[in-house]
Amino acid sequence: MAHIDLGVDERSYPGISGPMRYRPETAKPLNDLVNVLLRGEHPLTPGERELIAAYVSGLNECEFCCSSHSAFAAVQLDEGMALVDRVRADLDSAPVSEKLRALLRIAGAVQESGRKVTADLVAAARAEGATDLEIHDTVLIAAAFCMFNRYVDGLGTVPAADPAAYLRTAERIAEFGYSS
Amino acid sequence: MAHIDLGVDERSYPGISGPMRYRPETAKPLNDLVNVLLRGEHPLTPGERELIAAYVSGLNECEFCCSSHSAFAAVQLDEGMALVDRVRADLDSAPVSEKLRALLRIAGAVQESGRKVTADLVAAARAEGATDLEIHDTVLIAAAFCMFNRYVDGLGTVPAADPAAYLRTAERIAEFGYSS
Repeated sequence: MAHIDLGVDERSYPGISGPMRYRPETAKPLNDLVNVLLRGEHPLTPGERELIAAYVSGLNECEFCCSSHSAFAAVQLDEGMALVDRVRADLDSAPVSEKLRALLRIAGAVQESGRKVTADLVAAARAEGATDLEIHDTVLIAAAFCMFNRYVDGLGTVPAADPAAYLRTAERIAEFGYSS
Repeated sequence: MAHIDLGVDERSYPGISGPMRYRPETAKPLNDLVNVLLRGEHPLTPGERELIAAYVSGLNECEFCCSSHSAFAAVQLDEGMALVDRVRADLDSAPVSEKLRALLRIAGAVQESGRKVTADLVAAARAEGATDLEIHDTVLIAAAFCMFNRYVDGLGTVPAADPAAYLRTAERIAEFGYSS
């Protein structure tokens, strides 16, 4: 059970969905932010951006966010959950483009601390063709999930009881985006 | 110098101000979020909420954010920068209310990981009179600054060359809020 009374049945509103209903004033800019970062027009596909979100959420050991964004990535990547699992298990050997691998390394550094993003990590991404916008958004996606993961776990919310719920949500988000 | 070309003279746009101008699409929800969290109607004063932001930014060793929000807190607290310094140096002995101390302890846990927020920390805050809204917003302010700190440092932005700049910005924000 969450640390505060979210005013919802937590079995029906797992993870972030309870706090988002509890405080609509903050839910609005949070949803606006993820819609720009994960759904907006972009050189990285929604699947690739969701993969960054899932990867960071895994590093932060946030079960709800990692399960959610892994599913959101899987339904939007040709290689599905198998690729998400490979990236999360061993980024070095995962079958992603070298550009995406370099961006995921930047995201992994951000998860530890902003100060861990070195000029070398950025240069390596740039050498694989990453643009300023892709580097900027990778840093901000990773940073934003360091917020979302702490928000979800810091309030003691519970993950979904039925893992199939993540895939159902994934299909809705892939079609309609995040509610705003 | 920042890791990417922010399109601004970084001496005039230190810290987050460069990235905010570089990507107005994400700046909008980020500013909306801090305006709700730090400026909106609330049982905690703006000074108290800025103190939470400054405290977390200090723990994350983000010089720009910590200097900024310390100044923003100082101009809105009767006890000024002396209190900010006491809280940052030793929360246990700082002359704040027991409620604010308990909320700052929750914020400090969030800085490490959402999973560090225990039922005991929450019960301690509640015993000092903290409400669900205050606990919720403390968690989200702390989580949000784990994002902002990583955004600012992950892009390699530079702090203000002149520390007086933080106080000038503080006076503007205390009067007008965050631009949106």
